[in-house]
Amino acid sequence: MPANTEKPEQTGTGVRRRHLLFGGAAAGLGALAAAGAQLASSGAATNPAQAVEANGSETVPFYGPRQAGIDTGAQAHGVFIALDLSPESTPQRIKSLLKLLSSDAANLTQGRAALADTEGELALRPARLTVTFGFGPRLVDAVRPERRPSWLKELPAFSIDKLVPEFSDGDLLLQICGDDPLTVAHAQRMLLKDSRSFTTVRWVQTGFRRAYGTEKPGTTMRNLFGQVDGTSNPEPGTEGFEKVVYGDGKIPAWTENGTSLVIRRISMNLDKWDELDRSGREESVGRKLSNGAPLTGSGEHDDPDFAAVNPVGFPVIAEFSHLRRARPEDPNQRIFRRAFNYDASPGTGALSDSGLIFASYQADVDQQFVPIQRSLDELDLLNEWTTPVGSAVFAIPPGCAPGGFVGEQLFS
Amino acid sequence: MPANTEKPEQTGTGVRRRHLLFGGAAAGLGALAAAGAQLASSGAATNPAQAVEANGSETVPFYGPRQAGIDTGAQAHGVFIALDLSPESTPQRIKSLLKLLSSDAANLTQGRAALADTEGELALRPARLTVTFGFGPRLVDAVRPERRPSWLKELPAFSIDKLVPEFSDGDLLLQICGDDPLTVAHAQRMLLKDSRSFTTVRWVQTGFRRAYGTEKPGTTMRNLFGQVDGTSNPEPGTEGFEKVVYGDGKIPAWTENGTSLVIRRISMNLDKWDELDRSGREESVGRKLSNGAPLTGSGEHDDPDFAAVNPVGFPVIAEFSHLRRARPEDPNQRIFRRAFNYDASPGTGALSDSGLIFASYQADVDQQFVPIQRSLDELDLLNEWTTPVGSAVFAIPPGCAPGGFVGEQLFS
Ligand code: HEM
Ligand code: HEM
Repeated sequence: MPANTEKPEQTGTGVRRRHLLFGGAAAGLGALAAAGAQLASSGAATNPAQAVEANGSETVPFYGPRQAGIDTGAQAHGVFIALDLSPESTPQRIKSLLKLLSSDAANLTQGRAALADTEGELALRPARLTVTFGFGPRLVDAVRPERRPSWLKELPAFSIDKLVPEFSDGDLLLQICGDDPLTVAHAQRMLLKDSRSFTTVRWVQTGFRRAYGTEKPGTTMRNLFGQVDGTSNPEPGTEGFEKVVYGDGKIPAWTENGTSLVIRRISMNLDKWDELDRSGREESVGRKLSNGAPLTGSGEHDDPDFAAVNPVGFPVIAEFSHLRRARPEDPNQRIFRRAFNYDASPGTGALSDSGLIFASYQADVDQQFVPIQRSLDELDLLNEWTTPVGSAVFAIPPGCAPGGFVGEQLFS
Repeated sequence: MPANTEKPEQTGTGVRRRHLLFGGAAAGLGALAAAGAQLASSGAATNPAQAVEANGSETVPFYGPRQAGIDTGAQAHGVFIALDLSPESTPQRIKSLLKLLSSDAANLTQGRAALADTEGELALRPARLTVTFGFGPRLVDAVRPERRPSWLKELPAFSIDKLVPEFSDGDLLLQICGDDPLTVAHAQRMLLKDSRSFTTVRWVQTGFRRAYGTEKPGTTMRNLFGQVDGTSNPEPGTEGFEKVVYGDGKIPAWTENGTSLVIRRISMNLDKWDELDRSGREESVGRKLSNGAPLTGSGEHDDPDFAAVNPVGFPVIAEFSHLRRARPEDPNQRIFRRAFNYDASPGTGALSDSGLIFASYQADVDQQFVPIQRSLDELDLLNEWTTPVGSAVFAIPPGCAPGGFVGEQLFS
């Protein structure tokens, strides 16, 4: 933490008491900004002995042609918040809101206090904080309805769905991810404060993965079924990733360098899953629990052999396995998954309320996500233990440069 | 993660399908246990280049004269769960439950799968997991009512309290702390599964502090008001700590090396707090927000000068400040605080539901905690922004040796 950056001050209890009684404008922000700048300039620790705290000052750039938080190595904590615009929202007000949010996100992600930050010290350890904004159908319609991408709408109904409105839809998405839960909680509050005169909170979903320091960076995460989850996923920085997430340029100009996000809250029935033995669990996906290798291989990244059969003549990777059903024959039907586990407080009588905040990025929801979800809807062993309870689709606009704001292209 | 510890297996889809349909006993646990042992023996990484993942294999001993999770440097995540014993609980059944829980906690905290662990891979990264058990009044009464310590009962009513039953009382406490949220979630589920035939879940409180890697170990935490919280606290390993937490031996034999835990769920009104200016916020506690120094000093651990007055003649550290009110004149009235922040999903219309899971350990609740809470109840500027909504008191029994179980002394 920064050393004491304030001079011992003259205290005036009378004045203070007045502040206590009447409140007042936020003070001391100058000192805070200075502390933030100091921290930011000190950069990450280079001495190995300091490595244990180095992650606190790690930052992910906010400004750039694309928004952060997608190709960023997934952080330990992720919060997804959907806001509803108030009925009287005008394009002008939405613009103001986006400016405010972008400016605060730019500060917070760099380890600086937000503009009206009253707990600014909580911002000084960014720990790879990212903030990513998404626009729901109603937000785009409120600004430029003719610019709404055809895929920006509710997903078609699937037979497996048991959706509740408390976890579905929404006009403006805040995706806040970071390695430190306190930093994330603080950013969440700051951005919600920015939004409060223009929006109401529709839903909040809080998720997690392995903490920083638990495993080698880049280790595929595990979900609460114990499965290695995320093995077969386009790799950020590759051409494949570019195409899957940002498409081939045949997209409306305001979404160039933008993408889409489908969030499915999928409840996982752990009690029922427990009744299944280990080989049944492995068969349901077609991969081993030990290291995520396909049932026909031994290493996590071995190619599955879909033709292999066992001595009795049945396919080793079952026809109904999640692996087979989720892997489309059409190579254009790919998605980029960046999920988080959730583990909410169990209701009375229950042992757990757990699942996956399934987050999928793709250039075109209809062409990429929907066919896979349809295939899983038709047939997927995993459906026995999983139930989608929430669903939402957002356009993820491009990033912006300093002085700009996320979504500016929609207005121009 | 451990390498693939299973041999490529003969697959028999027919058999597997049967498993899928009928379930079956947990398999593959031998392999898992082996993987766990392997990991545990490899110990923490010593190569600085591996330091980034070293925390995953850090373990805190489970067995010993005292339970872990109290003098253990506070981890990033803490879950407190209160269970209610089913009405037909006999001492014998309670004993069986405690044996099962102790044995599973001993495994999980050392990075090994629990006995009937069906997602055993999730146990292999302990990341300083600790499990601490606490007994509520009804549990002790069910076994040996004459051995209930006089302080093991509901706290007296305080005027500031707005307690709800959903966060109060309980018969058996599971305190699960660790640096990795996935490990903690898994341990939580395993222990709840152990408990399910004997108990029902009364409440679950999930909290956090800074993540591993964000700050230098030992840095005092901040709460969601932005305050440095935990400065003036007995230091584990010191004589002061011994006395505060474990007393002077004048305690019933079964609680020797045991202590007590008071959990107060205290809601913090962040919206109202925000209306207060920075000096008002500092005055309410008597410490600076920048680094936690007393208003009369410049370093966090400087002694507060309660006699200092400002030019107008008022005390620099206000009479009603939390610092003054919480520091008892009687040196025996001290407590050991080990709190976690909570940040629950805000309800409709709200921006946040945040606060502190205030956890206080002391040898004697009545002699140490109650006088401080009473002093704060009478007068404390902080009461303006904080409200206790939950309250529970537990006896923390001593630890146990391998082969034993936590709480065994109560039965003998
Ligand atoms: C709770 C629900 C789900 C669970 C537990 C789950 C779990 C898994 C697991 C363990 C794998 C294999 C490892 C990997 O490559 O990541 C996998 C693969 C995959 N899943 Fe899911 N999944 C779920 C829902 C979904 C949904 C809703 C979709 C899309 C609509 C989806 C799409 C995929 C895809 C595309 C793959 C990679 C297939 C391949 O090309 O190999 N999953 N999933
Ligand atoms: C949400 C409620 C609370 C907040 C935000 C809070 C915050 C703080 C802060 C910022 C300090 C100064 C730094 C430190 O020494 O830790 C402090 C000190 C302290 N608090 Fe609290 N506190 C709360 C509730 C309580 C409660 C319920 C108790 C006990 C009944 C308590 C007992 C203490 C004690 C004993 C000290 C140290 C006093 C000293 O000797 O200097 N606090 N608290």
